[in-house]
Amino acid sequence: MRLKDLGERALLRKLAPLGYPLDAPLPPGDDAGGVWLGEEALFLKVDGFRYRDVALRGMGPFEVGFRGVAATASDLLCKMGRPLGFALGLFLPPEAEEELALGLVRGAAEAAGRLGAFLLGGDTNAGEEAALVVAGFAEAKRPLPRQALPGDLLYLAGDRWGRLGAAIFAHYQGVGLEAFPAIREAAHYPLPRLGLLALEGLLRGSLDSSDGLAETLWQLAELGVRVELEALPLYPDVVALAGSEERALAFVLYGGEEFEAVLVVPPERGEAVEARAREAGLPLFRAGRVVEGEGVYLQGVPVPRKGYDHFRP
Amino acid sequence: MRLKDLGERALLRKLAPLGYPLDAPLPPGDDAGGVWLGEEALFLKVDGFRYRDVALRGMGPFEVGFRGVAATASDLLCKMGRPLGFALGLFLPPEAEEELALGLVRGAAEAAGRLGAFLLGGDTNAGEEAALVVAGFAEAKRPLPRQALPGDLLYLAGDRWGRLGAAIFAHYQGVGLEAFPAIREAAHYPLPRLGLLALEGLLRGSLDSSDGLAETLWQLAELGVRVELEALPLYPDVVALAGSEERALAFVLYGGEEFEAVLVVPPERGEAVEARAREAGLPLFRAGRVVEGEGVYLQGVPVPRKGYDHFRP
Repeated sequence: MRLKDLGERALLRKLAPLGYPLDAPLPPGDDAGGVWLGEEALFLKVDGFRYRDVALRGMGPFEVGFRGVAATASDLLCKMGRPLGFALGLFLPPEAEEELALGLVRGAAEAAGRLGAFLLGGDTNAGEEAALVVAGFAEAKRPLPRQALPGDLLYLAGDRWGRLGAAIFAHYQGVGLEAFPAIREAAHYPLPRLGLLALEGLLRGSLDSSDGLAETLWQLAELGVRVELEALPLYPDVVALAGSEERALAFVLYGGEEFEAVLVVPPERGEAVEARAREAGLPLFRAGRVVEGEGVYLQGVPVPRKGYDHFRP
Repeated sequence: MRLKDLGERALLRKLAPLGYPLDAPLPPGDDAGGVWLGEEALFLKVDGFRYRDVALRGMGPFEVGFRGVAATASDLLCKMGRPLGFALGLFLPPEAEEELALGLVRGAAEAAGRLGAFLLGGDTNAGEEAALVVAGFAEAKRPLPRQALPGDLLYLAGDRWGRLGAAIFAHYQGVGLEAFPAIREAAHYPLPRLGLLALEGLLRGSLDSSDGLAETLWQLAELGVRVELEALPLYPDVVALAGSEERALAFVLYGGEEFEAVLVVPPERGEAVEARAREAGLPLFRAGRVVEGEGVYLQGVPVPRKGYDHFRP
């Protein structure tokens, strides 16, 4: 079957178990893979993208390199992995200026440094268009898989919800982000949250949200639960840029690329999680809960499943 | 400056120090990068390539995936890193059949498994042509940098020397490898040597040879020594396929892609290294020595520096 007919998620389901260890700290298909090394888990994660697919208006090589490390780090952090280092696999047109390569690597180094980690080299290749794979590895004392039990609370960590969707919308509308500094910052420098590590030991599970919140919640529901959203974060700047609450809501549900985390919390630990997040400076939004059943609902209304598929754009 | 004018090695020299840790187990620009985790070093390495650039006649997705893990593992092993796991960043045309992706990942899993390691997932993206980045990580108790002192002995580990050059030549000549099983095996399944780890503690330094032996020896000479080759391995099948000893020698010096290691050994440890390699089943060829001075010589004759540059093919 052709990849565009099979679809990316069906392909990944087939690929994930191949060669994966039986006693791994996280199951195959989770946000990152890993092995045990003594009593610690080590995670390895790669994330790849084409330059032209992610470079929004106003973003240069520095921002694209920064975004690359952010994307990989987000998957590591939401599994309670402390990032140690990153490496870059670059495809670059031979006609390109060296500033393209230098900018990508400087931006990647900046993001790594802000996460307390390093750039550990990379590899360059000729390519017809610029593309990038960022590999990252992390250590974790208590690896956190995707899991949920009926009754658990649902939190959204971070404050970029809807802001990336808004930035992508503005890009295609030809609108600059000068009047929307928080949206611009979220789009250009989406640094994942080291503060997530402060919640170690308190969470039931977590998922990276990069494929879009709705798709992420549907993946959560596939664990065998029903997701009941009571509210979603609607920031005033996102509503202002969207022009309506309805469109702003679509940005939150379907924007993607936030590099934030969806957290699943046992109900008796909700207060402790909120307190710990406050101390760590981690924004937290209580979005609803997980119950018995199936599907994803917002105030009782079904949330359609729509997510980005690289093979069916 | 354009990348094709700057050249790949000059670019990598500029990129390597960016974001690299000061107290790392290996210096920037070595075959792999790494960090200390307690008393152990952890290495991270990526290697990327386009499918069409490496798929020789008779190689399918399985062999290309296998080769990808082999390339990354070779860099880890020659630094005395025991591979733990690998992850794949795939760019695939949406029109491609799923067998392409499945074959690549199955081949990668096979190579990882033969090295006692695992596949820890990956990422898929649309691309105009199939391309692959393989990330790998490894643990090392005694990281081995590129280093050499005048008087040291020079060994070539493994038995693929010249065989990849021969396979590439056969590919472009339209010659099949049915009559050359060892060359075919070296080209299709170039598994790096776990046996290198048996030499831990005995070596002065080592380098991965994937850019071609001559280029690798020139990089060794750049450490501030002169490389004096007394002999090179000329296997009968390589000479037979080449049609002359002269061309066979060119395959050995300029073929590249062997995923074998060049070892630098203090003279008093030569016998111990040879004995340990014999026990571990690691083929070893004593090629010469390192002395004061500069440049690379074969029986007194200068060896020209020619190596593959991705931006100047």
